[in-house]
Amino acid sequence: MEERDAVTAANQAFYRAFETLNITEMEKVWLQASHIKCIHPGWPLLAGWGPVMASWERIFANTESMRFDLTDVRVEVAGNLGWTVLIENLESGGPDGTSRSRILTTNLFEKRDGQWFIVHHHGSPIFAPPTPAEDQLH
Amino acid sequence: MEERDAVTAANQAFYRAFETLNITEMEKVWLQASHIKCIHPGWPLLAGWGPVMASWERIFANTESMRFDLTDVRVEVAGNLGWTVLIENLESGGPDGTSRSRILTTNLFEKRDGQWFIVHHHGSPIFAPPTPAEDQLH
Repeated sequence: MEERDAVTAANQAFYRAFETLNITEMEKVWLQASHIKCIHPGWPLLAGWGPVMASWERIFANTESMRFDLTDVRVEVAGNLGWTVLIENLESGGPDGTSRSRILTTNLFEKRDGQWFIVHHHGSPIFAPPTPAEDQLH
Repeated sequence: MEERDAVTAANQAFYRAFETLNITEMEKVWLQASHIKCIHPGWPLLAGWGPVMASWERIFANTESMRFDLTDVRVEVAGNLGWTVLIENLESGGPDGTSRSRILTTNLFEKRDGQWFIVHHHGSPIFAPPTPAEDQLH
């Protein structure tokens, strides 16, 4: 149960870093390893520290504010690996005003030296309004 | 390296089961556990054995053939957990003819009693043609 809480905290730390729009904060929550990967909604796969961090810099450069409300958060742990599956309810502000979107996300975390780091982020856009099937999950 | 091969084999077994369009084959490759989850491209999150298997039955009932060509396959292992990130190049036949699609996918596998089972599948549609950035990964 403790490890589950630790993965939940690592997941929250990832979104807090995301909201800062500060690359230094984002660098702190990712494992510095060549096998990290990231799939932003609608983007191709990015693999490795350089491409993944470059993508965050690009997102942060084009965004003025981001606020995440996470719902339907599921947390699983198996040894030194943990994963979360959740819905990001995102309010994002930029040059063209404020937009709201919903993203269905899988995050993977690895434990190194007692600390959990994100190693994989896969977000996919939710186009439709909530369906009855999805409501049943709440 | 052996475990990496075993996760690669479990990943291939998942797609072979998918191609059979047979629910019994699909049941063999999933871990029989309440924490399994599945995100089909554009679908809401499905969690637990019942909803996940019902989704496969629904897909199989509406499909006449499926052929997967997997590209850009990345395989990672950490203890009793493994994950793959890949592109599914899918040729799918149904009542309305044959269609081709590309899906960016994360699969998670858990090892139980020496055998690897899939515990999470997250597929998201690729809408755009391959971009230069994506080509660099090959």
